[in-house]
Amino acid sequence: MMQRIINDPDQVVEDSLKGYLSAYPQYITATDNPRVVKNSQLTPGKVGVITGGGSGHEPAFLGYVGRNLLDAVAVGEIFSSPTAISFLDAAKAADSGKGVACLYGNYAGDNMNVKMACKMAEKQGITIKTVIANDDVPSAPPTDLEKRRGVAGEILMWKVAGAAAERGDDLDSVIELAQHAIDSTRSIGIGLSPCVIPAVGKPNFHIEPGKMEVGIGHHGEPGIDVSDLVPAVQMAKIMTDAVVNDLPFSSGDDVVVLISGLGATPNNELHILYYEVATLLEEQGIRIHRQYVGNYFTSLEMHGATLTVMKADERLKPLIDAPAHSIGFHQEG
Amino acid sequence: MMQRIINDPDQVVEDSLKGYLSAYPQYITATDNPRVVKNSQLTPGKVGVITGGGSGHEPAFLGYVGRNLLDAVAVGEIFSSPTAISFLDAAKAADSGKGVACLYGNYAGDNMNVKMACKMAEKQGITIKTVIANDDVPSAPPTDLEKRRGVAGEILMWKVAGAAAERGDDLDSVIELAQHAIDSTRSIGIGLSPCVIPAVGKPNFHIEPGKMEVGIGHHGEPGIDVSDLVPAVQMAKIMTDAVVNDLPFSSGDDVVVLISGLGATPNNELHILYYEVATLLEEQGIRIHRQYVGNYFTSLEMHGATLTVMKADERLKPLIDAPAHSIGFHQEG
Repeated sequence: MMQRIINDPDQVVEDSLKGYLSAYPQYITATDNPRVVKNSQLTPGKVGVITGGGSGHEPAFLGYVGRNLLDAVAVGEIFSSPTAISFLDAAKAADSGKGVACLYGNYAGDNMNVKMACKMAEKQGITIKTVIANDDVPSAPPTDLEKRRGVAGEILMWKVAGAAAERGDDLDSVIELAQHAIDSTRSIGIGLSPCVIPAVGKPNFHIEPGKMEVGIGHHGEPGIDVSDLVPAVQMAKIMTDAVVNDLPFSSGDDVVVLISGLGATPNNELHILYYEVATLLEEQGIRIHRQYVGNYFTSLEMHGATLTVMKADERLKPLIDAPAHSIGFHQEG
Repeated sequence: MMQRIINDPDQVVEDSLKGYLSAYPQYITATDNPRVVKNSQLTPGKVGVITGGGSGHEPAFLGYVGRNLLDAVAVGEIFSSPTAISFLDAAKAADSGKGVACLYGNYAGDNMNVKMACKMAEKQGITIKTVIANDDVPSAPPTDLEKRRGVAGEILMWKVAGAAAERGDDLDSVIELAQHAIDSTRSIGIGLSPCVIPAVGKPNFHIEPGKMEVGIGHHGEPGIDVSDLVPAVQMAKIMTDAVVNDLPFSSGDDVVVLISGLGATPNNELHILYYEVATLLEEQGIRIHRQYVGNYFTSLEMHGATLTVMKADERLKPLIDAPAHSIGFHQEG
């Protein structure tokens, strides 16, 4: 028996979309495609910035539609890609003649459907250019960067590209900055408990009590190590080492740190982890320019957390620092 | 074995406070009392607005320190009251000679310690006046309103009083408006799974799979009914009926709706519940002036949700509508 606040397990996406659309008219508006939402206050005459992905990661993806962020989002079923048509319709909703940047994660379904959407768009006279996020360090070795998954680093990529588009950058510049943002970003997750897709009704993976899965993916993809559960200070060390050594980050770097819960992690635990991560970074002379701690990119009710670190150079800082408000992201000016 | 991201189970509050203080210097600042945080940008020359309570409800309570919200907060151990000294020190941190409004929930420890703090403050020349929130409908019958617990309705009370203090109202006016706000507010919670206090290490109550506890308190206090788990639309009906019939709310009322997760409830589920609640209210001619849906007042990693509804008259609306930003609350102007 699933302990859930839902109606029909097969209608979770439809039913929750009705809730999001009625709760946040200031941020998101429905489109003719029931699986595409667009920015309620779209700035005209600029490059459109879109994404899309499976549901179950809320507030990602629709929670990042807003000024200096995304213009439209294609919404998939729980943990599965939106259709090519939905990606196309998101591009159409965001396009004002300056082209569209589609910035998404590196998952087979998304890759295939975005590719199809780009071809269809081209025939209709809409230019879509893409950046594929690959910030998840444990998902492939450094020799196979292009095989790595995109995870919470996508949020920082959207923030950079959204702010660049808002200030009037052209499509090539927005794309180049989005690519630079994700190239400067590394992430890792640790899972402490599994999650249940409502339509499936049971976990599709397990984490034993007393264990943790280091490097777990956002859909429960296996990590690099199942080890004994350790105190937060040691988790912070494992996570920080993985991201710092991979880019690598080094003394004197300014960074943006994003710690996200995976859905069921109490706020206090995320902040305990943040403190340990911040301490470790500072010990290495890595300076935290800005930090975000909360439920930014989740996996249903999984317990665990992700750490994302971006090297923020002088090109990225003003774009990260631009104010932004959306369902899932609030930053004052 | 607890699946948690912590160091020492007895140091969760200390360790998480270090994280909050380092992650949000724009909102909260440490004081000489390690269990009191104050507003980093305190407006001078106004009535101080404070609260306090046990930890484990984050972002409540320290997440509501901000402009048009709270000025200082006393932080207790997990699920237990802050000390009288901490309430006193919070009052001192917030006082600028215009007096302090202490607006808190109706729990035995808080009642006792606030009372002591008020006496100590009086001797030191600081005036504290109090309002005790009692919005939780299932916690006592309507004939015993003063026995009801304060729950998520406190957030709306803080918002009203914080905005009143900010615009320059005197202490009596702030207190009268806070009392009016909570008198206009009703809440109810439904629990779907228990939570574990880290220092205890096992749940102190149980909810069987397939069951739900209607009227559960924020610390697992027993509700009014343990029933079979029902679809979201029926949960919404139970919750909406309980609050609407109690005040009562009626056709033509403008209301503020706040749905909070209890910690482990996925965002999608809260929005499914919100849609059903909004539909039921609108069917009764009750108009939603503003809505908040998210993890506003939690109980560690409990699964479940609370519904809070406030009747927003012309005195309360501008105070609710005032912009505010804090760790846990963001409202644009």
